[in-house]
Amino acid sequence: MAFLKNAWYAAGWSEDFTDKLATCEIIGQHLLIYRSTAGIHVMSDTCPHRFAPLHLGKRVGDLVQCGYHGLRFATDGRCVHNPHGNGVIPNRVQLQVYPAAERHKLLWVWMGEKSLADPTRIPNFSFVDDPQYAVIKGEIVGEGAYELYTDNILDLGHAEFLHTGLAAAAFTAGARTVAQEGSTLFSTVTHPNDYPSDVVQFMLKKPGQKMDYWGYSRWDAPATMAFDSYLGEVGQPRPDRPAIPSLHIFTPEDEGRTRYFWAVGRSNDINDIEHSERLRAGYVHAFENEDKPMIAAQFRRLGGKDFWEMKPLLLPTDSGAVKARRILAKLIQAEQTDSVDRAVQAMARNTAVQELREQND
Amino acid sequence: MAFLKNAWYAAGWSEDFTDKLATCEIIGQHLLIYRSTAGIHVMSDTCPHRFAPLHLGKRVGDLVQCGYHGLRFATDGRCVHNPHGNGVIPNRVQLQVYPAAERHKLLWVWMGEKSLADPTRIPNFSFVDDPQYAVIKGEIVGEGAYELYTDNILDLGHAEFLHTGLAAAAFTAGARTVAQEGSTLFSTVTHPNDYPSDVVQFMLKKPGQKMDYWGYSRWDAPATMAFDSYLGEVGQPRPDRPAIPSLHIFTPEDEGRTRYFWAVGRSNDINDIEHSERLRAGYVHAFENEDKPMIAAQFRRLGGKDFWEMKPLLLPTDSGAVKARRILAKLIQAEQTDSVDRAVQAMARNTAVQELREQND
Amino acid sequence: MAFLKNAWYAAGWSEDFTDKLATCEIIGQHLLIYRSTAGIHVMSDTCPHRFAPLHLGKRVGDLVQCGYHGLRFATDGRCVHNPHGNGVIPNRVQLQVYPAAERHKLLWVWMGEKSLADPTRIPNFSFVDDPQYAVIKGEIVGEGAYELYTDNILDLGHAEFLHTGLAAAAFTAGARTVAQEGSTLFSTVTHPNDYPSDVVQFMLKKPGQKMDYWGYSRWDAPATMAFDSYLGEVGQPRPDRPAIPSLHIFTPEDEGRTRYFWAVGRSNDINDIEHSERLRAGYVHAFENEDKPMIAAQFRRLGGKDFWEMKPLLLPTDSGAVKARRILAKLIQAEQTDSVDRAVQAMARNTAVQELREQND
Repeated sequence: MAFLKNAWYAAGWSEDFTDKLATCEIIGQHLLIYRSTAGIHVMSDTCPHRFAPLHLGKRVGDLVQCGYHGLRFATDGRCVHNPHGNGVIPNRVQLQVYPAAERHKLLWVWMGEKSLADPTRIPNFSFVDDPQYAVIKGEIVGEGAYELYTDNILDLGHAEFLHTGLAAAAFTAGARTVAQEGSTLFSTVTHPNDYPSDVVQFMLKKPGQKMDYWGYSRWDAPATMAFDSYLGEVGQPRPDRPAIPSLHIFTPEDEGRTRYFWAVGRSNDINDIEHSERLRAGYVHAFENEDKPMIAAQFRRLGGKDFWEMKPLLLPTDSGAVKARRILAKLIQAEQTDSVDRAVQAMARNTAVQELREQND
Repeated sequence: MAFLKNAWYAAGWSEDFTDKLATCEIIGQHLLIYRSTAGIHVMSDTCPHRFAPLHLGKRVGDLVQCGYHGLRFATDGRCVHNPHGNGVIPNRVQLQVYPAAERHKLLWVWMGEKSLADPTRIPNFSFVDDPQYAVIKGEIVGEGAYELYTDNILDLGHAEFLHTGLAAAAFTAGARTVAQEGSTLFSTVTHPNDYPSDVVQFMLKKPGQKMDYWGYSRWDAPATMAFDSYLGEVGQPRPDRPAIPSLHIFTPEDEGRTRYFWAVGRSNDINDIEHSERLRAGYVHAFENEDKPMIAAQFRRLGGKDFWEMKPLLLPTDSGAVKARRILAKLIQAEQTDSVDRAVQAMARNTAVQELREQND
Repeated sequence: MAFLKNAWYAAGWSEDFTDKLATCEIIGQHLLIYRSTAGIHVMSDTCPHRFAPLHLGKRVGDLVQCGYHGLRFATDGRCVHNPHGNGVIPNRVQLQVYPAAERHKLLWVWMGEKSLADPTRIPNFSFVDDPQYAVIKGEIVGEGAYELYTDNILDLGHAEFLHTGLAAAAFTAGARTVAQEGSTLFSTVTHPNDYPSDVVQFMLKKPGQKMDYWGYSRWDAPATMAFDSYLGEVGQPRPDRPAIPSLHIFTPEDEGRTRYFWAVGRSNDINDIEHSERLRAGYVHAFENEDKPMIAAQFRRLGGKDFWEMKPLLLPTDSGAVKARRILAKLIQAEQTDSVDRAVQAMARNTAVQELREQND
C-alpha cells in the first residue's frame, strides 16, 4: 500500500518536543525532531554517511552531531562539519528537511513536495486552543493499518458494542447523513430526546436526563478527523457551540503500526481538574483496552491481504468509511500518476469549500 | 504446502467446548465453536463485515453477536440482525458453517465440501469410550509442521533415544511390517520375550518381567493415528484386547504450528486414579519436554524448505513414514485436480477395507 | 548477499571447545564441534536422516549419536551405526566435515573446498601466544551484517564520538595511509606529540603524558583484522614492538547476525591481573554498550537494502572500508564464476606479499 505523501501528518503533541533530539516514524520515514532558538526542525533521522540514527547523537549548539562519526548538520540539513582527516565535506550532503507547523497544540509535518506545503491546509481543530474548553488528550500506538482506525471512528455504531461506557442509542438509532465536498467528508447523526451515553452524562454532570443530540464529524485525508457533539435541552434549538468537540488523528508509522492522537474538549466545569482526570482515564481505557485490541485483531485477520480483496460486507452505515477509503485511494493515485500540483490543488479547492461550509454551519 | 481439505480434523476434546464462545485454527482457518441447546456449532470466526474475530463477541440466546458492531448470526451462519440505521441485512451474508461430529470424546470438524462430510469416516478410537479402560489424555501445541509429528510416531524407534522412560528394545530390534490398504497404513512391531519399557513396566505394575510384545499402528490422512500395544505372558497367545491402546492426532493450525491430541488407555488397575496421574505426568513430560523441542529444532533446520528437497536419508525403518507422506501428497493432489467426489470416494473405499481388517484382526 | 566460502572463519576461542558437543553457525551453516582423543572435529550439525541438530545428541566414545533416532557418526563424518531393524546403513551417508585449525588461541574453520584449506593462510595474530603480552579477550554476538562491523574498525574515527573512553585525536586528526596488496589491506595512522585516549593512558599507567602514536591495521577477507598501536616518547624512534596489539574478527552467523571476537594485548605490567580485569571491563562496555547497539541501529535503518543501493556518503577517511568491501565482492564473485583454485591462488599471493611486508616492517 502506498501512502499519501502530500499531506500534513501529526507527528506528536507540541509539548512533547523540546530541545532534546527526538525521533518519530511517519509513513515509513524516520524523522529527527528538535527545537532550536530558531524554531522547530524536522529532518531525516538517518545519517547519509553510515545510516546511523541521528537522534542517537547530540546537539552542538543548533547543530546536530551524529553519534557515530561526528558529522554535523545544520537546521537546513546541510552537513557543515566533518571532523576527520582534511575535513572535506562533499557538496551533495543534505539531509531532507520537512516542512513543519504547529497548530492546535500538535506538530504537523508535510511529507510531500516542499513547495506545496501550506499550513493553512491543516484541518481546523481550534477547540484545543480555546480557553472556553477544558481539553484532555492523549496518544496511543497500536498494531494495525491506519485505515482501520479511520473506519473505527467513521462508524461510531461500534460504541454500542465495544465501549459500554460510551454506548448511546444515538450511534445506532440516530438519523445519519454523509456528504462529500471535494476530498473532505462531512457526516452527521441526530437523535432527539434520549439519554446520552454514560460518559457524556458523567461529563456534563447531568445523570439520567434525556437530551437532544447532534453529532458532526469531518474527515480529511489521510486520516484526520473532527467529531463534535452538541447536546441540548429536549425540544430547544441546537446550541451554538459543541458541548464536546474532539479530534482523532491517525498517523501511520508504517503499514502495520498507527499512532493515534486524540483530544476531547468540554465546555462545562472546565476548571474541575479532578473531573478532567477521571474523564481522561475513561477515554484511555476505551482507546487502549477496547479499540486497540479489536483493531489489532482485525488487522491480523486481514493477514496482509488488501481490504477490498477480502470482500467486506458493506452495511448502509458504512458509507462514510467506504467514501473515505475511495477518496484516499484517488488522492494517492493522483499524486503518483497525475501532476502533484494538480492533485494538491484538488485538495485546496476542497479546503475552500470546507471553510465556506464551516462559516455557514 | 497445501492442506488436505476433505478430511475430519480433531478440533479439541469435547469436554473443553461449552456454551462459551471458543476459537481454534485448523489448516489456517479460524473457527468459532460453541454449544447451543441444539448442539455444537462450528463456523467461521471472522465477521464478514470488518473481520473482527467473532469469539471476542458474546452470545445472545443461541445467536452470536459480533463484539465490534453488533451484527448477530444464527447457528446456520445467517446474519439475522443489524442494529444500525434501518437494520437492512444484505442477503448474501452467511458465515461458513463446518460439519462437526463428536466421537471418542473429541470434536471433529470437516474442512472440505459439506456434502461429503460423513462422520462414519472418522477413524475408530473406541477405547476412549470403553469403561474397561482407564484413559489419560492431553493436548500440546508445538512449533513444527504436522508431518514431522506423524514421522515421529510412525517411527517409534526414536523412543530408545529421545525418551529414556519409554525406551524399549521392541522399537529398535522388533520385527516390523507395513501394509497400505487404500489410503490407510497399518504397521506392526512384534518382539517376544523381552522387558517392556520402564513406563510400561510401571503402568502394568509388573516390574522386571519379560513379556511378549505386539504393537499395531494405524495411520489415516492427514495425521490421525492409533497405536495399540498388546502384552502377554512369554510364549502364550496374543491377548484379545490391547493392554495399552493409544491415539495420536495431529491437527495443523498452519504450516508451522501443530496441535497434538493424545490419549493412552490401560486395562489394568483402571480405578487407581493416583496411578493414572503419575502416568499422565510421565507422558506429558515426554511429549512436552522431549518430542516438542526436538520437532521444533527439526522444523527450524528445514528452514522453510520442502522435506524432499532436503534429500533426507531414508532408512528401511522409515518406510511407514515415507508411505504416509506419499499417500497424503496423492490425496491433496487428487482433491485439487481430480473431482473432489472421486478423491473422497477413494478414501471411503479404504475405510471399508479397514473395517474389514479390524473385524478379522 | 553471498558469503565468501573459501576462507578461514573464526568459530570461537579454543578454550571454549571441550569434549562436549557444541554448535555454532557460520555463514548460515550449522556446525557441530567437539574434541576427541584424536583432536578437534568440525562437521555438519544436521543429521541427514531427519535433520535433528546433532549437538542435541551425545557422544559414545569418539562417535556422535543423534539424539533423535540414534544414528552414530564417526569423526570422518561417516554413519557407522544404525540401531534399527537390520541395521543397514546406506552408503552415501556422510556428514560434511570441515577443515579446522587452532591458531592464536582461536578455532578456525574452512568453509570452502576442502582441498584448498591451508592453515598457513590463517592471518597472523601471534601476540595472543606471546608471553611478553598480557592479553584480554572476549566475544560478542550482535545484530547486523558483518560488513558493518568491518566498517566500524576500519574507520576508528568513530571512537571520538561513540567511545568517550577510547577517544583520541589520533583517529580524527592523525595522518592516514591505506595500501592494498593483493587482497590484503594495510592502513596506518600516525599522530605525534599528543595525549593518547583515556583508556591507553590508563592501560600504560601514564596519565597526562603526551606521546608519539603509530597505528597499523591489517584487514583480510572476509572480516579478519589486526590493529596494533605503537606508543613512544615524543620525538623518539618508533618502538620495535606494538605497545597494544589487538585483533578484531567478525564471523557472520548469517546475513543479520555477527559474532565478534576481540583480543587486546599490552606489553606493560603484564602480571597485574587486576589491571587486566579493569581493562577488560572497559572494552566489554565499549563493544557491548556502544558499538553493538549502534551497528544494530544502522542495520535496521538499512532495512534489508544493499549498502551501495542506499548511496552512502563517502568521506576521504572511508577509503579503507570501501576498498575492503570491493575486495570482498571481487573474491566472492571470483569463487562463484572463476575457478575456485584461481581465486584462492590470488589470495595466496597476497599472503606472501604480506609476510614479506611484515618482515620488513
